[in-house]
Amino acid sequence: MGLSSISAGACLLPSPKRASCANYARCVNQILQGLSNMQLWLRIPLLKTDEDSVDVDSDDLRDSWELWNSFRLICEHHSQLSLALDILSTLPSVNSIGRWFGEPVRVAIVHTDSFLTNARGYPCLSKSHQKLITGFFNHSVQMVLSGKPLHNIPAESTGSAANHIDKNVNNVERHPLRSYLDYVGYLYQRMEPLSEQERIELGYRDFLQAPLQPLMDNLEAQTYETFEKDSVKYIQYQRAICKALLDRVPDGKESAITTVLMVVGAGRGPLVRAALQAAEETGRKLKVYAVEKNPNAVVTLHSLIKLEGWENVVTIVSCDMRLWNAPEKADILVSELLGSFGDNELSPECLDGAQRFLKQDGISIPSSYTSFIQPITASKLYNDVKSHKDLIHFETAYVVKLHSVAKLAPSQAVFTFNHPDYSTKKSNQRYKKLHFVIPCDTGSAIVHGFAGYFDATLYKDVHLGIEPSMSTPNMFSWFAIFFPLRQPICVQPGSPLEVHFWRCCGSTKVWYEWCVTSPRPSPIHNSNGRSYWVGL
Amino acid sequence: MGLSSISAGACLLPSPKRASCANYARCVNQILQGLSNMQLWLRIPLLKTDEDSVDVDSDDLRDSWELWNSFRLICEHHSQLSLALDILSTLPSVNSIGRWFGEPVRVAIVHTDSFLTNARGYPCLSKSHQKLITGFFNHSVQMVLSGKPLHNIPAESTGSAANHIDKNVNNVERHPLRSYLDYVGYLYQRMEPLSEQERIELGYRDFLQAPLQPLMDNLEAQTYETFEKDSVKYIQYQRAICKALLDRVPDGKESAITTVLMVVGAGRGPLVRAALQAAEETGRKLKVYAVEKNPNAVVTLHSLIKLEGWENVVTIVSCDMRLWNAPEKADILVSELLGSFGDNELSPECLDGAQRFLKQDGISIPSSYTSFIQPITASKLYNDVKSHKDLIHFETAYVVKLHSVAKLAPSQAVFTFNHPDYSTKKSNQRYKKLHFVIPCDTGSAIVHGFAGYFDATLYKDVHLGIEPSMSTPNMFSWFAIFFPLRQPICVQPGSPLEVHFWRCCGSTKVWYEWCVTSPRPSPIHNSNGRSYWVGL
Repeated sequence: MGLSSISAGACLLPSPKRASCANYARCVNQILQGLSNMQLWLRIPLLKTDEDSVDVDSDDLRDSWELWNSFRLICEHHSQLSLALDILSTLPSVNSIGRWFGEPVRVAIVHTDSFLTNARGYPCLSKSHQKLITGFFNHSVQMVLSGKPLHNIPAESTGSAANHIDKNVNNVERHPLRSYLDYVGYLYQRMEPLSEQERIELGYRDFLQAPLQPLMDNLEAQTYETFEKDSVKYIQYQRAICKALLDRVPDGKESAITTVLMVVGAGRGPLVRAALQAAEETGRKLKVYAVEKNPNAVVTLHSLIKLEGWENVVTIVSCDMRLWNAPEKADILVSELLGSFGDNELSPECLDGAQRFLKQDGISIPSSYTSFIQPITASKLYNDVKSHKDLIHFETAYVVKLHSVAKLAPSQAVFTFNHPDYSTKKSNQRYKKLHFVIPCDTGSAIVHGFAGYFDATLYKDVHLGIEPSMSTPNMFSWFAIFFPLRQPICVQPGSPLEVHFWRCCGSTKVWYEWCVTSPRPSPIHNSNGRSYWVGL
Repeated sequence: MGLSSISAGACLLPSPKRASCANYARCVNQILQGLSNMQLWLRIPLLKTDEDSVDVDSDDLRDSWELWNSFRLICEHHSQLSLALDILSTLPSVNSIGRWFGEPVRVAIVHTDSFLTNARGYPCLSKSHQKLITGFFNHSVQMVLSGKPLHNIPAESTGSAANHIDKNVNNVERHPLRSYLDYVGYLYQRMEPLSEQERIELGYRDFLQAPLQPLMDNLEAQTYETFEKDSVKYIQYQRAICKALLDRVPDGKESAITTVLMVVGAGRGPLVRAALQAAEETGRKLKVYAVEKNPNAVVTLHSLIKLEGWENVVTIVSCDMRLWNAPEKADILVSELLGSFGDNELSPECLDGAQRFLKQDGISIPSSYTSFIQPITASKLYNDVKSHKDLIHFETAYVVKLHSVAKLAPSQAVFTFNHPDYSTKKSNQRYKKLHFVIPCDTGSAIVHGFAGYFDATLYKDVHLGIEPSMSTPNMFSWFAIFFPLRQPICVQPGSPLEVHFWRCCGSTKVWYEWCVTSPRPSPIHNSNGRSYWVGL
């Protein structure tokens, strides 16, 4: 059934009555202060009434999320305070339910009166309930059935719904809620199994990682190996190089023209391979320079060239692309310097240095990239950041496989870089003000920070990226990035969320600063890059 | 003129244009991070438009305080970011102006076009401007005059407004703004000089002090001496004792009845003296027990008794009142165990112990006391608490002579204790939920914490206290108490402020917890008395 056992022990707390819960929350908070490793699960009904359908002055609970939010703010986001959600027969809007997937929901209590009856008299759930339960399974939420049996199962047919049960069990008295449990079990078994990639990524879910610093540090062999396995990415690069080669060398000129292609940041050679395959696919002649600053990678690169017999086509240059004096200019400059947030591994600064040896009409692959952010509820990530009890961790961006998060509004573009860029007043400093509108039917929501993504145009219509609405399928080289907020911000329905992002450049480092100005101003995060920066 | 010089140097920053100031604030914040001890003064016009008089959708600045508030939140309440206020010809409402007195206003820039013309052609200011300027003088705000001279002073009469200027100065060319300066100087000189008490308290203004722990610790001789000087307090006690004696002993029975009066916590004897003076004033016979736990005070008490020849009337008991086995019961129990917040020096717990030896119909002086709180803007106090960079200081109540604060709403009663109290379910634990409404014409405001006071009924209509609306004049034994908030809370106009206070009792200590639940919930402060408590 996938129901994990209660490892450390937990205590179910009754739901607060009405909205004013300060006294109750104080008592719970007092207990939490002295608790070793037991969890407290606050029982909250999954309930949100439409604004229109209730008397405005009524004291009735209209959005149980607000109750939970008050309670946990009073208890200071305590990591041992979690949720048990009561699932009722009527469900609120999908957007409103979405919020709970960023909250520490441990248990869903499904009441028998939430069940419908199928044609054969058995309990079943509505489509929206089914979707919710499946969502809970996806987030390892335990299921509890509660209430009296409300379905009279025809006696002779008991076996049909439970024919996987050992025959000898049939002699024992059937649990009165057995048919409900069977149905929930059926929903679990009906779920699509995880793909291989999802299984690999399981261990990374909601786990904060420091972003790579490939420019300042040299990558490890293990890191190269992982990234080289991402065939989808290199197929996209190969497609882009093919199109660029066809544009540079028209049909009929294949034998007359040799295209000079430089891979800057060649690593252990995957883009060199993609380039040579593109040349073969298009029948174009190619001369490749593979520029790489990491001496360890260069060693491997030499072996690869020898092994593949590419000595005549590929020249290896062991040098930082920003310093190299190229013997000739390139038609095509290929790089894979993008981080989860696009420019965060200093692709702009590297390509500025490499642009010197690109022909005036030369092509850069990628030709542009854009970063994106969206506000998220992510109590697990917030608590992990908070557990360090310092400022630095709240002003750092993390690479993370986002899972238990609620995405509160569609992502928006932040910074764009184009390559090559010959404009005279070129600068890699950027500033962007963003205005997010959380759908009104969501209700109030808490923003723990921002999920960041990128999308890159490799060449013309060939793109690559992780922005959720247009992400490249089955690509695993990048997780999202997470920019935390030192104080989570509550956003009321209809209230805009105004966010500012800066990309700042110093002589030795590049960093981001960020802040919120509406609904209420936050401090500037990472002022002067004091907590988090990327070294040049 | 009372204009203090700019000691550490300051830089005047131009006023932000429009409401969106994130980019400007980021730059200033960056500078603040690296600033040694220079002050930055952000120039802000003193401006608040009535809600009715402007187009709601207009982007015009409606309340400049909001601009300042955004700016300083983005700059994280930096202690070197202060304010220069531009005083315009039209002033906003008094409530709205009041907010600025809790903010770090260093300079007021008065423009010549704010001046009116008096009958003799000289510049003068409206009543409300005069009040504002006087308020600034009271808060050591520097005055700067700005603008072109707009008044043509009759040449022959220059001397009359400036006849305090040395004659030789008259030969030098008069500064074109001289007459404005003279008028501002006149406002300063017209102010009432500080009383002696105010002069003494000057050094304590807005200075955080840890509250006394007279029960757990023994007071120092110096502390007794200071408090004994507060004649107003002892006059009130004497009045109360007089009334109690007259009630206990009707006229005609003066010689028949001897009233037993016990001073619990007699210290070095001021209440003993007040009691004996009351006996003399009313012609009642008195037997006094002076109970004191501090052995040092008892020594002084013995000398006093001998010196005054009170040996036959006063019995000294060197004992903790909670432990003393009294030889007889008292008619009147007199104590002065109150702290700034009434019960915060554990008067309830002490008097519970002493109540054993009060006659069933006996009188306790004080007979009751109530604590009060009110929300305040107090950026100086907030920054002083914050400078410790720890949680403990944010969860401690401080005794403080409040001066540079804005009181945002009238104070409200919190906890009341009555003595004696013979109820069977008596407990000194308390909980109170308070609902403050900040006047709408104030505009938005920031709450840095709560000012606390007390009022005590000594006996019948004789009371004593520091609650501002009914405080006992010229009494200096108590300053207010300040309960900080870990995160200052912004309250929008019309939005209620809901606050919760708990008085918690353990076996060895008593403490307060507090939190805000509206407009947004704060964490519980001082959970389990982890940061601040009073020892039993």
